[in-house]
Amino acid sequence: MIKINNNFQKLPGSYLFAEINRRVNKYQAEHPEAKIIRMGIGDVTLPLPSVSIEAMHKAVDEMSSSSTLRGYGPEQGYAFLRELIVAHDYAPYGVTLDPSEVFVSDGAKSDTANIVDLFSNDVKIAVTDPVYPVYVDSNALAGRAGAYLPEGKWSNLVYLACNRENGFVPALPTDPVDLIYLCYPNNPTGTTLTREQLKVFVDYALAHEALILFDAAYEAFITEPEVPHSIYEIEGAKACAIEFRSYSKTAGFTGVRCGYTVVPKSLPVDLNSMWSRRQTTKFNGASYISQAGVAAIYTEEGKAQVKANIDYYLENARVIREALAKAGVEHFGGVSSPYIWLKTPEAYPASWDYFNYLLTEKQIVGTPGVGFGLEGEGYFRLSAFNSHEATREAMERLSK
Amino acid sequence: MIKINNNFQKLPGSYLFAEINRRVNKYQAEHPEAKIIRMGIGDVTLPLPSVSIEAMHKAVDEMSSSSTLRGYGPEQGYAFLRELIVAHDYAPYGVTLDPSEVFVSDGAKSDTANIVDLFSNDVKIAVTDPVYPVYVDSNALAGRAGAYLPEGKWSNLVYLACNRENGFVPALPTDPVDLIYLCYPNNPTGTTLTREQLKVFVDYALAHEALILFDAAYEAFITEPEVPHSIYEIEGAKACAIEFRSYSKTAGFTGVRCGYTVVPKSLPVDLNSMWSRRQTTKFNGASYISQAGVAAIYTEEGKAQVKANIDYYLENARVIREALAKAGVEHFGGVSSPYIWLKTPEAYPASWDYFNYLLTEKQIVGTPGVGFGLEGEGYFRLSAFNSHEATREAMERLSK
Repeated sequence: MIKINNNFQKLPGSYLFAEINRRVNKYQAEHPEAKIIRMGIGDVTLPLPSVSIEAMHKAVDEMSSSSTLRGYGPEQGYAFLRELIVAHDYAPYGVTLDPSEVFVSDGAKSDTANIVDLFSNDVKIAVTDPVYPVYVDSNALAGRAGAYLPEGKWSNLVYLACNRENGFVPALPTDPVDLIYLCYPNNPTGTTLTREQLKVFVDYALAHEALILFDAAYEAFITEPEVPHSIYEIEGAKACAIEFRSYSKTAGFTGVRCGYTVVPKSLPVDLNSMWSRRQTTKFNGASYISQAGVAAIYTEEGKAQVKANIDYYLENARVIREALAKAGVEHFGGVSSPYIWLKTPEAYPASWDYFNYLLTEKQIVGTPGVGFGLEGEGYFRLSAFNSHEATREAMERLSK
Repeated sequence: MIKINNNFQKLPGSYLFAEINRRVNKYQAEHPEAKIIRMGIGDVTLPLPSVSIEAMHKAVDEMSSSSTLRGYGPEQGYAFLRELIVAHDYAPYGVTLDPSEVFVSDGAKSDTANIVDLFSNDVKIAVTDPVYPVYVDSNALAGRAGAYLPEGKWSNLVYLACNRENGFVPALPTDPVDLIYLCYPNNPTGTTLTREQLKVFVDYALAHEALILFDAAYEAFITEPEVPHSIYEIEGAKACAIEFRSYSKTAGFTGVRCGYTVVPKSLPVDLNSMWSRRQTTKFNGASYISQAGVAAIYTEEGKAQVKANIDYYLENARVIREALAKAGVEHFGGVSSPYIWLKTPEAYPASWDYFNYLLTEKQIVGTPGVGFGLEGEGYFRLSAFNSHEATREAMERLSK
């Protein structure tokens, strides 16, 4: 008999962005003339850095000759890229890593989801609320989240609330937990933790033998000097944290796919070997073309091009923040992040109602905060991944 | 506390190809002058079809402009590719599929490993012996294989022996099983099942409500008219089988990464929705560049180029078969497959001993049969993925 994993049935409704798309497509079909501005899903709009385009053309050409063909690559990623990562993403911040602690993949979403393979099924897990849904759903599918309760929470998860009352700085878990997912700069709120605030979590993890799964997918957007670029800038973190990075937002690789995960060898259990075994067993390496494309961003020219793209999005974030401030809308994030998290106006206490209002009255698509967790109710996410023109027009519509 | 998945510790030693690489590298270091011919790992050597090279250049160029940029794609694959697959890989064989039954991914290894997510942890699993290690190891990591016994088998798996005594046609399981992994044309033996032989398994699965996980990664090599290209050519298979396909060997995509999985909607449980949910939760789609590259092989020109590459490897397989026949070495496969499975000579009853003999005496690298399972002991795999010149030289060395 085909006995299925019953945890699939526990997952609530459709995935957030699928539901958004459904509503947007319905509205667009009914109003074909509407010029909808999409500030919902966090997808890039600028072209890839030209250094990556050139490098990928070269990589494609290599595939056209037997003498330069790249077949199966290392499941952990090519050494040339792992070495660049260590030298450019970590060394400048005083973090010493060995390339064997870096695992290149097809993206941070796969890695943050697949990391669940490494742990026992009785681990206790803490997530922030609101939260990037992948951390929750991947554990729910593995049967670790318990039951999905009518109020919209999982019975076995520990939720760390992030809201304007605590300045979006989560409190430490009061019950003991084994795994803590943190994402900073945060998706969805766009807020950050300072070194001191992150140190509180590192110290907790060290004291309680817990593991922090630190998603730094938005690291490239950091502008504030007090915000760490890597959790390994915090003393002791190499003994209690795995870090995920993505090239999706950094270099525009959402459609090309590449990311990486750092699993230090100094963790109290040898998760480095386990992740290596997991990847060699269940993954066949990221595309050589993708890896060649991201390697190019570590040149001086590449860094300048990435910075120009990031600055472009951050300028959008600034425009959004200023427009919201002018309109008297309370908002957060958007300084070291492409995301602005706003408090919905009093007339729309429910974030899906505000979604419908923005879609039907302003033809602007955002993301309802409640889609990221109960604490997101009454909040709304706007993304800076758009053109200057569209961003300005959206803000003009908003302020009308 | 970091509580790990203890199933990792149950996995035996290092992965087969890692061990081969270790021995080869050691020998090469000690004999820097040795001209080693690699007929071990099944990696392609011919360049990619020029249609794919052109299509990938075009796809890279699309990434260089905002107006043509492709960001996040559908996790299930682009519609253009899913439609081509249905029209070209299935319709010509009388198989009607809907594009929504096709899921494009970064490769068949990921899919055959990740499919374990869909099933309950108490499923009973049958695998052929010898077997592609991924099926076994992915289930072992999920805790379904039981204990690894000293003789080299997992206590909970049902092994279906394939050997010269049964003509490499596995017998049906005698104990009830829920999942049956089949790979045809087979890796590692290079042997095939006829429609009649495969029908026996389909009928069994239908009668016992079992599910067949059919790996057709080597479909492009089929030359024998009685060998089905898809399990769905067998009546009833759409109610009891999932099929995996790969572009690795077909179009030389081992380093570029692309494959797909067919999950029919007519299965008795809705695994189609479950796989879609799994992929949207834990995967972010295959690279657009890869998908554009494989789409090009469905043109007339592309088909001709793929066929030329496949014919090139099949010619190597013929050369290997003829040389082995001349040398009186009993062998199998290599007719509808790039793999030749040979019985090791009496002087080397253990396949690792034969590996060492070939490496040190003939400077030829093959794959020890026992690496694929106990029934593989006394057998050895040679691969046709090489140049004509290297293949001929290897066979000359062998016959000396």
